[in-house]
Amino acid sequence: MTATVANKIVIVGFGLMGASLGAALKQRGMCEEIIAVARSEDTCREAVAQGLAARAFQSIADVAAELTAGDLICLAVPTLVVADILPQLARLVDDSVTLTDCSSVKGSVAKAAIAAYGEVPPQFVLGHPICGSEKSGVGAANPNLYTHQRIILTPLETTAADHLARVRAMWQGLDSEVLELSVEAHDQVLAGTSHLPHVIAYSLVDTLASDPDHENLFRYAAGGFKDFTRIASSDPKMWHDIMLANRDSILRSMDLFSENFAVLRDAIAAGDGETLMSLFKKSKQARDQVVATAATKMKAKAKTS
Amino acid sequence: MTATVANKIVIVGFGLMGASLGAALKQRGMCEEIIAVARSEDTCREAVAQGLAARAFQSIADVAAELTAGDLICLAVPTLVVADILPQLARLVDDSVTLTDCSSVKGSVAKAAIAAYGEVPPQFVLGHPICGSEKSGVGAANPNLYTHQRIILTPLETTAADHLARVRAMWQGLDSEVLELSVEAHDQVLAGTSHLPHVIAYSLVDTLASDPDHENLFRYAAGGFKDFTRIASSDPKMWHDIMLANRDSILRSMDLFSENFAVLRDAIAAGDGETLMSLFKKSKQARDQVVATAATKMKAKAKTS
Repeated sequence: MTATVANKIVIVGFGLMGASLGAALKQRGMCEEIIAVARSEDTCREAVAQGLAARAFQSIADVAAELTAGDLICLAVPTLVVADILPQLARLVDDSVTLTDCSSVKGSVAKAAIAAYGEVPPQFVLGHPICGSEKSGVGAANPNLYTHQRIILTPLETTAADHLARVRAMWQGLDSEVLELSVEAHDQVLAGTSHLPHVIAYSLVDTLASDPDHENLFRYAAGGFKDFTRIASSDPKMWHDIMLANRDSILRSMDLFSENFAVLRDAIAAGDGETLMSLFKKSKQARDQVVATAATKMKAKAKTS
Repeated sequence: MTATVANKIVIVGFGLMGASLGAALKQRGMCEEIIAVARSEDTCREAVAQGLAARAFQSIADVAAELTAGDLICLAVPTLVVADILPQLARLVDDSVTLTDCSSVKGSVAKAAIAAYGEVPPQFVLGHPICGSEKSGVGAANPNLYTHQRIILTPLETTAADHLARVRAMWQGLDSEVLELSVEAHDQVLAGTSHLPHVIAYSLVDTLASDPDHENLFRYAAGGFKDFTRIASSDPKMWHDIMLANRDSILRSMDLFSENFAVLRDAIAAGDGETLMSLFKKSKQARDQVVATAATKMKAKAKTS
């Protein structure tokens, strides 16, 4: 039995990430009560009906007053929605309550917190679970979504140690690996490894879908195409927000990619087989290495757990 | 028990595609004898040791003389290697023997056949199984690689009906779905749905691997990144050949993608959320549709088989 890490845990936003967090916390009995906050009445009803939350409300205002030290609020809404919610939290929630979030961009959340509170308050531990799925909505809830996945926290110098410890404990209790990065490093790293692949996948599918003969094109798409474009089935609103919130880092990554792609284009146009072989070999080696490292870590983890 | 579709089947090139074909034919008892041809002595030894071929030779010259009507040769070598082998086949193999191939580009193979034979001979049925894996080599042999996958044949007006029927029967015997396209349509369609995704994946991984901080970057790569870049672990020589062999169609696809990508870049730079939402929604819809269609077909197939 995992230890209790908080009294009440309020999950704001009950889509894939929030509902999966609820399912995971409940499965492991990690808090006294799980409370869902979701704009849609249907989602609230489903959260309770599925047993993922004990109570559900359509607004944080309905539950804010009862929260106190030892309680935790986790924001699991699209990145830009965080900015709409923080002023409410600043007004309604006691500064003893632990606050964290799941957004894919940390710089924009820090800015929104400064706008709402005048600073990123010591109770707010910025976080980002780097896992997910192309599925969305409460129906996609998966109690194992976070298991053996990595969570990046980006605490500031002003972040309070006890709140940081509580957020760490929550994720570690779900068998996630907690890492720390600075806000800036997080946003640059994720621009390259996550935001760039998504914008590429969306663009590739749109390129093919814009072909007058696209039905025929897609008819001959093989398994590789389906894997490659899986992330283009991700939630458009979530990714719309990320693109706008992490604009500068994403543009930088897009430009580096475009330069590399142009080099490859020139090599193909010139029939320069040497450049192609060398680039393909280097890529294969790098990608094989990433997978081998991940597999080794997974094995080590399975042994110790 | 599946009917026998040929007496001897000679598989030239015993990597992932060839060895998997051997494994599948053997499992279903679809010919009297499977013969492997591979340049490497080790591969020949392993092909026989693993029971994937009854005999193995390092050159087609060692087996060509014994082949006659009712036998079949399948070339499963990288695209550009086909051009090296065809002159030997033209010299050594009887015109009653059925000939087919597995290359990802058909125009270059047709050209190589014309160079070797003066025309694409009636016995040569150009083909391309649109399946595969990022794994390579005889050790990756998988008897189910072709099961419920699609095979595109690109017969010409001069292709003989009996040879076409034999090649069709071989693939259908492996529960593959056989489709027909013209050589030109095949090369354009595959440029978009397969060759373009591969060149993008190689380029993306190379872009990140070229970052001075790439070890840190890759450390924070999530599951989406691994799926997205799986195809960048594909055999460099195979893809080098494809890029050169299907150059014009690939350049055209790359340019369409680059234009689309530039539009997305501008929208992100301008903070144009409407364009982002509309493009992401369109992509998601298109990609969801591809997967839904594939799933429906698979279900229908499972019912009838």
